[in-house]
Amino acid sequence: MTFGAMPRRPGAPVGPGPTPATGPVRPGPTPAERFATARVAHLATVTPDGAPHLVPIVFALVGDVIHTAVDGKPKRHRRLRRLANIEHDPRVSVLADHYDDGDWSRLWWVRADGLATITDVPEPALIARYPQYGVQPPPGPFLRIRVTAWSAWSA
Amino acid sequence: MTFGAMPRRPGAPVGPGPTPATGPVRPGPTPAERFATARVAHLATVTPDGAPHLVPIVFALVGDVIHTAVDGKPKRHRRLRRLANIEHDPRVSVLADHYDDGDWSRLWWVRADGLATITDVPEPALIARYPQYGVQPPPGPFLRIRVTAWSAWSA
Repeated sequence: MTFGAMPRRPGAPVGPGPTPATGPVRPGPTPAERFATARVAHLATVTPDGAPHLVPIVFALVGDVIHTAVDGKPKRHRRLRRLANIEHDPRVSVLADHYDDGDWSRLWWVRADGLATITDVPEPALIARYPQYGVQPPPGPFLRIRVTAWSAWSA
Repeated sequence: MTFGAMPRRPGAPVGPGPTPATGPVRPGPTPAERFATARVAHLATVTPDGAPHLVPIVFALVGDVIHTAVDGKPKRHRRLRRLANIEHDPRVSVLADHYDDGDWSRLWWVRADGLATITDVPEPALIARYPQYGVQPPPGPFLRIRVTAWSAWSA
């Protein structure tokens, strides 16, 4: 089952849910706002021969651009594979989600589909977001993913 | 940055790590064993026009087969899209990972690349694994993903 098919609690409302009878309606977060709260996300690319490839990432969202760093360790075959995917086809999909094993009514996910470019220039917001990067800055290279479509779901 | 590039703690060993000087070596979990501990994973497919598609899933691993249910709700365009991807190309990638914001030395991920088939028959282990399914069984359809390659990384 995917999150979009989570069974509802018995008696839970179906649809957009009740509107408060009085007072202003407080809008929920936008997909981008909710995405930006996640500390980890998942990046899907496609290999040159058309298979999906998937890794977890830490990231910073600045406007409509997701910034992340590519594996800089000397596992060259892996590093090259991931970069080769993007060089062959820049289309990527990045998913952030919240899972709560005990309460499926609190689940949500946000997906950002976009186009990735490779750069050697780190984004300061990415470095600032994770204290670990303050100790040891990532060598790069880095990805900049311009989001072309947001998709969102919540229970 | 992807998990594979997490900076190490200062002074942390690089490489496979020390072997205990005495006593039996306790092997770590296999990739499949570690994967099976996750309560949620992420499923990447590829659209017929070659773009990656990504959703979170709950699942059960039985042998080398990952069982999950496809969105059974009446969002037909989304449901058909996901199924259409697999009907067009059964290659999928499923990632389970552990993220710890405060301690990057505890991170791990396991990726299962495999071939998906669509079925209307639920796997009992999937239903048994999530109490929510006991309350409201998923209508299906279901995916059976035969894992052809395991990849694993840990900090």
